[in-house]
Amino acid sequence: MEMTLVVVTGMPGSGSSTVIKEALKLREGRSGSKRSKSGYSVRNYGDIMYEAALEEGIVSNRDELRRLSVEKQREIQLHACDKIAEWRRSTEHIIIDTHCTIKTPTGYLPGLPEYVLRKLKPDMFVLIEAKPEEILERRHRDRTRERDVEDKSGIEEHQFMNRVVSMAYACLTGAPVKIIENHDGGLGKAAQELANLL
Amino acid sequence: MEMTLVVVTGMPGSGSSTVIKEALKLREGRSGSKRSKSGYSVRNYGDIMYEAALEEGIVSNRDELRRLSVEKQREIQLHACDKIAEWRRSTEHIIIDTHCTIKTPTGYLPGLPEYVLRKLKPDMFVLIEAKPEEILERRHRDRTRERDVEDKSGIEEHQFMNRVVSMAYACLTGAPVKIIENHDGGLGKAAQELANLL
Amino acid sequence: MEMTLVVVTGMPGSGSSTVIKEALKLREGRSGSKRSKSGYSVRNYGDIMYEAALEEGIVSNRDELRRLSVEKQREIQLHACDKIAEWRRSTEHIIIDTHCTIKTPTGYLPGLPEYVLRKLKPDMFVLIEAKPEEILERRHRDRTRERDVEDKSGIEEHQFMNRVVSMAYACLTGAPVKIIENHDGGLGKAAQELANLL
Repeated sequence: MEMTLVVVTGMPGSGSSTVIKEALKLREGRSGSKRSKSGYSVRNYGDIMYEAALEEGIVSNRDELRRLSVEKQREIQLHACDKIAEWRRSTEHIIIDTHCTIKTPTGYLPGLPEYVLRKLKPDMFVLIEAKPEEILERRHRDRTRERDVEDKSGIEEHQFMNRVVSMAYACLTGAPVKIIENHDGGLGKAAQELANLL
Repeated sequence: MEMTLVVVTGMPGSGSSTVIKEALKLREGRSGSKRSKSGYSVRNYGDIMYEAALEEGIVSNRDELRRLSVEKQREIQLHACDKIAEWRRSTEHIIIDTHCTIKTPTGYLPGLPEYVLRKLKPDMFVLIEAKPEEILERRHRDRTRERDVEDKSGIEEHQFMNRVVSMAYACLTGAPVKIIENHDGGLGKAAQELANLL
Repeated sequence: MEMTLVVVTGMPGSGSSTVIKEALKLREGRSGSKRSKSGYSVRNYGDIMYEAALEEGIVSNRDELRRLSVEKQREIQLHACDKIAEWRRSTEHIIIDTHCTIKTPTGYLPGLPEYVLRKLKPDMFVLIEAKPEEILERRHRDRTRERDVEDKSGIEEHQFMNRVVSMAYACLTGAPVKIIENHDGGLGKAAQELANLL
């Protein structure tokens, strides 16, 4: 039997990685067993891409990844899918932590274009959302990494495009799209919602 | 020549089934002939799924249908498509009465994922819409069946997701998407709009 | 090496054709060379369709194009794609000036359905947008061609459907979607944004 692959997406500031972490803690607490734990491995799609690119000798550091040609990036995406498929054949369910769309200077780039979906075959898409003002405020607080300057209406538009493309992903795969709101002070509720899905 | 297949969708409370019924009455009145009638057969997609599941011996009652695994549900969907294709080879045009997306505990599930669209090859998608407050009020009045609790913003989100996924359906099939508004007191107008399309 | 194919879309009144013209002027000024000019050829998709239909002897004038059956229109679309593919193998990059969706009496028709995208393989989608009131005002000023009557909310809905379907195009091709706003008095800015992409 194939293991479940859940794609959890959120834009920077949505708190998607934190929601995943808390949801898995809730599952661990629930199962009571120390060995099986949550039953899920979490992988960041960007990290997998980077590892695949290193292994193939295509890049030697992370910065080079962004400056690759579109063709090379596609090649690496497919290698990353192969790595995920391999993990999936092992014992654990998988959560992929990624972005629905990436806002680049040339526009909104779908994170999971058709050729990736055909390989990944996800079972479920989860969108972690928050109000534009919450996202803006969280980004200002997070000084560990430089983020692109997006204003409130830019965030609103981005979140709109994420919802929209997720339904194209759903149509191509037959998998459902769940929206989970992660408002300030509501992390526990959001984590619980995600834990219930897993 | 292949007969036309029109997919009419609406969420519970949109009044889609009533609009279809009234539109076909208008067509019957128009043609004047008793024999040819409206020229359309209407089929509810859920009913076809259930019939297909019964025939295949997969379920013995309707409740079992919802509790099937995703794989079994896909299998039944494909059987349902085959049944529709068979009807289509007969003399009548077909209207499929269904949902654009189904709101499940695991999220918005596309009613017509790609593997269904490839088999069905619809000629047109029609979305029957109403204002969230109208849908809410109609659901409250309808006590014949238990419906999920959705508030105004939930209905708004659901209708948004329906519009969005319908354009993915359109992109995959090349078929147009028509939005028909069925406001309170506007059933005649909505039915006329649908009748004009058929 | 394959030449770049950029699809620029905008609804009537968005000013997409003017933005393209001005963007190419900026590129010409920039390169300084008279021979290579902007490096881009612009083609109107509707014109290519018409030429293809004339060549195939399917129509003898433009009006006939609209009254063709859906099957014939598809056939012509594929011929048009072949013509574009041929141009693409020549030296110049190509901009296709077209519509994201066409609003017809039977609904929103996707301008680039999947079977077209598979042939065209665009590298980028650009949406030229404006506020509904700006579009309305521009349409009123333009008396050279008769345009369908769309009110403000109709334009808003149309622009929504354009954004939505563009993300389905993005998902199927892996190409990004760039939104460029062409507000009154902002043509220079819009043209500059497009020029930067090319």
